[in-house]
Amino acid sequence: MISKATLGRIPTYLNYLKSIENDVAEISATTISRKLALGEVLVRKDLASICGSGKPKTGYNVIDLVNSMKKLLNFNRTKEAVLVGAGKLGKALLRYKGFQKYGIDIVKAFDINKEILNSDIDDIENFSSYCTLHQITIGILTVPSSNAQEVADIMVKAGINAIWCFSSRRLEVPDNVKVQYEDLALSLAHLVNKAND
Amino acid sequence: MISKATLGRIPTYLNYLKSIENDVAEISATTISRKLALGEVLVRKDLASICGSGKPKTGYNVIDLVNSMKKLLNFNRTKEAVLVGAGKLGKALLRYKGFQKYGIDIVKAFDINKEILNSDIDDIENFSSYCTLHQITIGILTVPSSNAQEVADIMVKAGINAIWCFSSRRLEVPDNVKVQYEDLALSLAHLVNKAND
Repeated sequence: MISKATLGRIPTYLNYLKSIENDVAEISATTISRKLALGEVLVRKDLASICGSGKPKTGYNVIDLVNSMKKLLNFNRTKEAVLVGAGKLGKALLRYKGFQKYGIDIVKAFDINKEILNSDIDDIENFSSYCTLHQITIGILTVPSSNAQEVADIMVKAGINAIWCFSSRRLEVPDNVKVQYEDLALSLAHLVNKAND
Repeated sequence: MISKATLGRIPTYLNYLKSIENDVAEISATTISRKLALGEVLVRKDLASICGSGKPKTGYNVIDLVNSMKKLLNFNRTKEAVLVGAGKLGKALLRYKGFQKYGIDIVKAFDINKEILNSDIDDIENFSSYCTLHQITIGILTVPSSNAQEVADIMVKAGINAIWCFSSRRLEVPDNVKVQYEDLALSLAHLVNKAND
């Protein structure tokens, strides 16, 4: 399991490696750490968890590194995600381009409010058939806490196995479904406490 | 320094303790862990970092615990924050009520686009005077990456010492200014990798 911090540095590594892949066959962790101004120990650990240990002296094959990184970012196969709850936050996520960096595309949003439906936002009644048809396994949950469990149940029934949950309500889901909670209020509170220390 | 995970459980502890504070003078970590279905070791650690060690056998004074928790959540003094960049994400945060749980209030947004100004969104030109007048020290940065450093500079000059940054661009700020990055794309990518494991 690759750490979130390592995953977050992969786009940086990948940008650099792609700029040199036509000119350089092998590269050492030391060189990469210098070029990117990152700690050498950090880069060594990152590369080891991404691509195993490099060869003594020569280091890593650049093409192997690039392919391993692309695989981790799902570059070879864009992952499609759906979103339920097209309020302000839901819409903001829907329009956000940054997910492409990690090979993720939010292909459709769903809502219960028929007045806001358009080409990007579909009726929640069509959720299950859409997910089945397009084999979607990633769901983003941006509904109020009071509806969170109900929507999670709908997602699980439709075959979603990864839920990104913006509600602070803990969800009850089967063991094979991963839930990641995004508590924005907690993040801000944590920053405020750090600044007050 | 209290951990982010502990901070995230404080609202849960506080809800429970406030429901019993008129009836119970002292409470043990064991009782709290049972009532809230949380691990006892976890609760002991949380309470120790929030309020020091309890008394043997009797545990913690309920009023002391409540006051320590309120203090950590800034309940006694609402912290006011400002936001720069009133796009979709900025507006979603501005309307989000969940920050109140941690005693934080986003009192005003600022933007460079004069066409979207209203009673909640002011001209960026007024940012510095507003922050000085209201002694604001918390800034939320939701502008595109290309403008992030420029806005961070404006924030620092205006006396902001805690920046919550939604841009993936690393900011250069003085040592006394804390920056917390919120990389939503990375969070989602991390979940996708976990689900694929």
